[in-house]
Amino acid sequence: MRRRVSSPQKLVEFREFHTPSSGIFFRAKQRLWSEKSAFQQIDIIETDSFGRVLFLDGLVQTTEKDEFFYHEMLVHPALVSHPAAAEVLIIGGGDGGTLKEVLRHPVKKAILVEIDRRVVEVSRKFFPWLAPALADERVELVIADGNAFIQKSTRRFDVILIDSSDPVGPSTVLHQKEFYSRLKAHLKPRGIIAGQAGSPLYHAASLREKKAFMQKMFRFCLYYLGPVPTYPGGVWSFLFLSDRVNPLREIRKSPPPGLRYYNREIHRAAFALPEFLK
Amino acid sequence: MRRRVSSPQKLVEFREFHTPSSGIFFRAKQRLWSEKSAFQQIDIIETDSFGRVLFLDGLVQTTEKDEFFYHEMLVHPALVSHPAAAEVLIIGGGDGGTLKEVLRHPVKKAILVEIDRRVVEVSRKFFPWLAPALADERVELVIADGNAFIQKSTRRFDVILIDSSDPVGPSTVLHQKEFYSRLKAHLKPRGIIAGQAGSPLYHAASLREKKAFMQKMFRFCLYYLGPVPTYPGGVWSFLFLSDRVNPLREIRKSPPPGLRYYNREIHRAAFALPEFLK
Repeated sequence: MRRRVSSPQKLVEFREFHTPSSGIFFRAKQRLWSEKSAFQQIDIIETDSFGRVLFLDGLVQTTEKDEFFYHEMLVHPALVSHPAAAEVLIIGGGDGGTLKEVLRHPVKKAILVEIDRRVVEVSRKFFPWLAPALADERVELVIADGNAFIQKSTRRFDVILIDSSDPVGPSTVLHQKEFYSRLKAHLKPRGIIAGQAGSPLYHAASLREKKAFMQKMFRFCLYYLGPVPTYPGGVWSFLFLSDRVNPLREIRKSPPPGLRYYNREIHRAAFALPEFLK
Repeated sequence: MRRRVSSPQKLVEFREFHTPSSGIFFRAKQRLWSEKSAFQQIDIIETDSFGRVLFLDGLVQTTEKDEFFYHEMLVHPALVSHPAAAEVLIIGGGDGGTLKEVLRHPVKKAILVEIDRRVVEVSRKFFPWLAPALADERVELVIADGNAFIQKSTRRFDVILIDSSDPVGPSTVLHQKEFYSRLKAHLKPRGIIAGQAGSPLYHAASLREKKAFMQKMFRFCLYYLGPVPTYPGGVWSFLFLSDRVNPLREIRKSPPPGLRYYNREIHRAAFALPEFLK
């Protein structure tokens, strides 16, 4: 299938501005895909250094080589903290990296709700982890707006993971108070919500704002951090929300085997916050 | 003095390749300085996002906005772990960021040994923290090769900090076994060495190699990590070496006031290593 696209000889440069005057660049060996879907611009390139890189609206979403940092840290702190997560909801995450990590746990059901069918379709083609994950019999794929899904659905979940893009474009609503109120109504008693929360350096105001309303809604409301080399600033924040589960209590469950970043020590360490975030 | 350089209208782009096909770019408002010293190419630019940025041989060494991550993490784990550090040696670090952090502690003497006089001179001019640090009466500046200095000197230190550039060019020797053997002979009984050790992602082989010889030389030989947004991969490694001081034992000293990244929780968390580094 990759024969159809531009030749390896044409080195195309992709760049993402992290600030108005700085950012990251990639030299693509191949431009594997480029389209404007109903929701956003989708590009996939092949690079020597990071393998395949997925951009949505020009922003790096995931790369083959470093996706494990982000996906392990979005998924395992919640899944390891929950005593026995059976039903998991993923909002966003059409590239499948989050789903792949969820399936390492003995869950009974994982529902992936992605707004953009094309993200799922091109990821299934170009990202090697997505097709097998989607074929897993525990998985249900729903192409829908996450906010609309949660308003209609009556199901409750042990863990809800928010793998949204940043609070611009189609994901804006997924960062607002009303959405979290609705999500909370879909949690089982010992339920946990974990979500990506942006760059602690570049989105610090958004982190503070979210914390202000979240800590009124949940008994345990904690940020935690992990490195993501290809994201702005190289370090990313996640939010852990629960009324019953304190992620810093002794964890009895072991992480699933085969992980590359997350382990017990990293779990605890991730919740230590820099002075500038306090 | 900045009037002498190119006008703000001319946006010059600086980039550093982190891999053969990816890296970081900056758009400079001004090119503040550019020279070839006896040892290396020195460039300083002014950017909107990171303030002033110092490059040596084209590699980002320090920026005004994010220098605190690197310098706090090079200095405070060792200085807070040591029960009473009075004499401190810094090898490299001519930009002065490490010295500034050392001086937050009640040390009696801080010797800065920098090979390239021009790095000190241009940093004194363009980096606001260096001139006051050098004027501190506890500070002694030595322009010399760090390795030669340590072979001649008979002084012993409580803490030795290695603020070298990467193991290419003039800093190669500062990453080798013989240099660390010599350093060890200059430690007081409860002495500690801390040094920058490269990217845990891109220099993993070098980290393993160093660990192999270091752990035969020191009872406590631990890597620790911290974010540095403008360094390759966004996360950096440091090495903590001591025969007497275990940095993970309970720390009774408080960090000095005014820090932006380091605190007690970060100290402990920094020593948690990802699965891929174990």
